[in-house]
Amino acid sequence: MLVVGELINASRKAIAEAISTKDAETIQKVASEQLEAGANFIDVNAGVFVGKEAEYLQWLVKNVQEATNDAPCCLDSPDPKAIQAALSVHKGIAMINSISLEKIRYDALLPVIAGTDLKVIALCMSDEGMPETTEQRLKIADRLINGLVQNNVQPDNIYVDPLVQPVGTNKDFGVEFLNAVEAISKEFKGVHTMCGLSNISYGLPNRKFINQTFAIMAIAKGLDGLIINPLDKRMMASLITAETLVGRDNFCMNYLSAYRAQKIEF
Amino acid sequence: MLVVGELINASRKAIAEAISTKDAETIQKVASEQLEAGANFIDVNAGVFVGKEAEYLQWLVKNVQEATNDAPCCLDSPDPKAIQAALSVHKGIAMINSISLEKIRYDALLPVIAGTDLKVIALCMSDEGMPETTEQRLKIADRLINGLVQNNVQPDNIYVDPLVQPVGTNKDFGVEFLNAVEAISKEFKGVHTMCGLSNISYGLPNRKFINQTFAIMAIAKGLDGLIINPLDKRMMASLITAETLVGRDNFCMNYLSAYRAQKIEF
Repeated sequence: MLVVGELINASRKAIAEAISTKDAETIQKVASEQLEAGANFIDVNAGVFVGKEAEYLQWLVKNVQEATNDAPCCLDSPDPKAIQAALSVHKGIAMINSISLEKIRYDALLPVIAGTDLKVIALCMSDEGMPETTEQRLKIADRLINGLVQNNVQPDNIYVDPLVQPVGTNKDFGVEFLNAVEAISKEFKGVHTMCGLSNISYGLPNRKFINQTFAIMAIAKGLDGLIINPLDKRMMASLITAETLVGRDNFCMNYLSAYRAQKIEF
Repeated sequence: MLVVGELINASRKAIAEAISTKDAETIQKVASEQLEAGANFIDVNAGVFVGKEAEYLQWLVKNVQEATNDAPCCLDSPDPKAIQAALSVHKGIAMINSISLEKIRYDALLPVIAGTDLKVIALCMSDEGMPETTEQRLKIADRLINGLVQNNVQPDNIYVDPLVQPVGTNKDFGVEFLNAVEAISKEFKGVHTMCGLSNISYGLPNRKFINQTFAIMAIAKGLDGLIINPLDKRMMASLITAETLVGRDNFCMNYLSAYRAQKIEF
């Protein structure tokens, strides 16, 4: 399970403030806390700063990696200039969050990714809007995967995000997403699936509990990556346990060592 | 989601004591608590009392139904005499827990069930032992379902239990079960799947958390019945939430009313 820590995002007030005041200490603290809690990648997002995104994203990467012994970052921007600026200082292999089938975004980001070893999130979104059914997601995934592979991106570096939509809007939005995870995992061998999932609970009470439950269900269907808050102890325990239950944990070693580290206690 | 409350089981010390001393009050309290917590059926088991099982099972049914305004019972015995004794006093439609493909059990219980409206759990167990793979489970399920349907049992009254085995014994025992749930749901339209799942966590610490996680995963794969402790508040909340996420809850009405009844708070 690949875990991307989502907390360094300028849409969060405390983070936006830390970025605009160049408060490196705050950013570094949030970065190292996420790493310690089990994140494999640290998401960095400076999207709210129009005109300064490239500069700020670069600054975030520098500070995150300084604090985390060069943990890899997940560069969260649709702007190729911001991505390039961040990549120019990034050490190791970064993840791009995200390419999609929207023409402007696709054309802008493909040249950055083509022929590289970068990991890339391929978001199931097109100019026709947000997909609702499993089939619509499969079609977009198919075109994205083919486009990336034809441009010399290894399938193992592709993480398809089928795009979560709120179950409060349509009772089938959860199950259509889950079935898409399963269909993509089966149809495109070697390609990964991942997602940010908090959107599922939009408009409903006790969102944290819904999100945890949905993460477990998605893992049952084959999901192997998540963009989450790794400081949510119960969420992390859910992922570890779900992976054990889905056959990804020899002799329950991960579960047992997590238990001994008191990660399965609440 | 059909919930069978599992607590009135003579393998539990307090229940065995209540049965052998004819302490109706204790049994009735446990019965009505389970009903109140959301159980649809109340399991009754007097299996440890060799020679007295029929008498005791009948006594349990009488007392449970008296306390619960005739809630239906799940008659938990391989012995046709015990089942018949219980049925003779049971009001409404009971569930039989369970028939299997083990020859002695199958031959004994089929005549009791044939041509009735009883609900029946069809356990994926045969004289060849416990199934380990999805395929082995499918084969047994196929023979059980065919046998029951040919004996005039409606598919809608059949609840296939694919048989949970401990993930601590073999890392694939979880995923093979989950895939069996999905395969049975897809292959045998109109038939249900259900299970008792505490066996999944046998030998591991924090079993309650594992069981909750596994229940959610099984629902993602299509499971629509569970034999559980309905007094486990977080387990019940998990079921309600998982059902919402899998498309079984119009406008999230069940989730929202459970939330208002403080069933999603911990």
